[in-house]
Amino acid sequence: MKSALAVVALAAAVLTPALAQAQFAKADDAVEYRQSALFLMGNHFGRIGAVVKGDAPFNKDDVAKNAELVATLSKLPWPAFEGGQTNGKSKAKPEVFSDKAKFQQAAEKMETAVAKLNTVAKGGDLASIKTAFGEAAQTCKSCHDNFRAK
Amino acid sequence: MKSALAVVALAAAVLTPALAQAQFAKADDAVEYRQSALFLMGNHFGRIGAVVKGDAPFNKDDVAKNAELVATLSKLPWPAFEGGQTNGKSKAKPEVFSDKAKFQQAAEKMETAVAKLNTVAKGGDLASIKTAFGEAAQTCKSCHDNFRAK
Repeated sequence: MKSALAVVALAAAVLTPALAQAQFAKADDAVEYRQSALFLMGNHFGRIGAVVKGDAPFNKDDVAKNAELVATLSKLPWPAFEGGQTNGKSKAKPEVFSDKAKFQQAAEKMETAVAKLNTVAKGGDLASIKTAFGEAAQTCKSCHDNFRAK
Repeated sequence: MKSALAVVALAAAVLTPALAQAQFAKADDAVEYRQSALFLMGNHFGRIGAVVKGDAPFNKDDVAKNAELVATLSKLPWPAFEGGQTNGKSKAKPEVFSDKAKFQQAAEKMETAVAKLNTVAKGGDLASIKTAFGEAAQTCKSCHDNFRAK
């Protein structure tokens, strides 16, 4: 029984990336999908940034909604890179596909940081939000520096 | 007191669309934002569609996750149309901006239908999911027929 379960678990682990890639039959779809997720994430992260910088008024509920959305969106882009698909619109550097482990690590750092921002935003303390926002922004910048063409 | 609250409520109602528009200083941002939200929504709605059509296996959790994401995304595109911004990439027909009431009604029908799909998907009954999916798909088609250029 144990070994049957192990086989099922192994099959799931092997099949999941394949299924994820299958969502993106065309390279254009894979690129548009990941760019869409990252663009929306950047937009809503930027709305929190405007509050953090004092360019927009601090409304707890709005910040919490934006942080929740950013956390949700942060999980989306990665399967759309897994098939190695690219096109003329993609800004993904070759390292995204040649150094998958490092790219995955950078993605996970960002996911962790925006999950923390989401938790902190629910608390509604602006000083804590500023700190968590800064930490999350650093993970965006670091990944863009290493993996996104200018 | 009552009239002071009424003034605040009125101010909020008047200011909210202005704030929403302010998120999209450039027309390109408004178009990319709404296209990104609609593209992601279409992709995840399509994953449920593949299950409904029998092209993909029925996994309750996956369908529920996709339906939840579709419901979340369904609320996003509309403020990015409010400023009337457009560009060469936009497929929005002039009617989006000239017949706002009808466009809003179509958007709300879709939001209601995908909210229902989300509720039904959590229940995990495939027959009910198929019905709710079909109703939601009809609202997509109807809005595209009226408001999206081919």
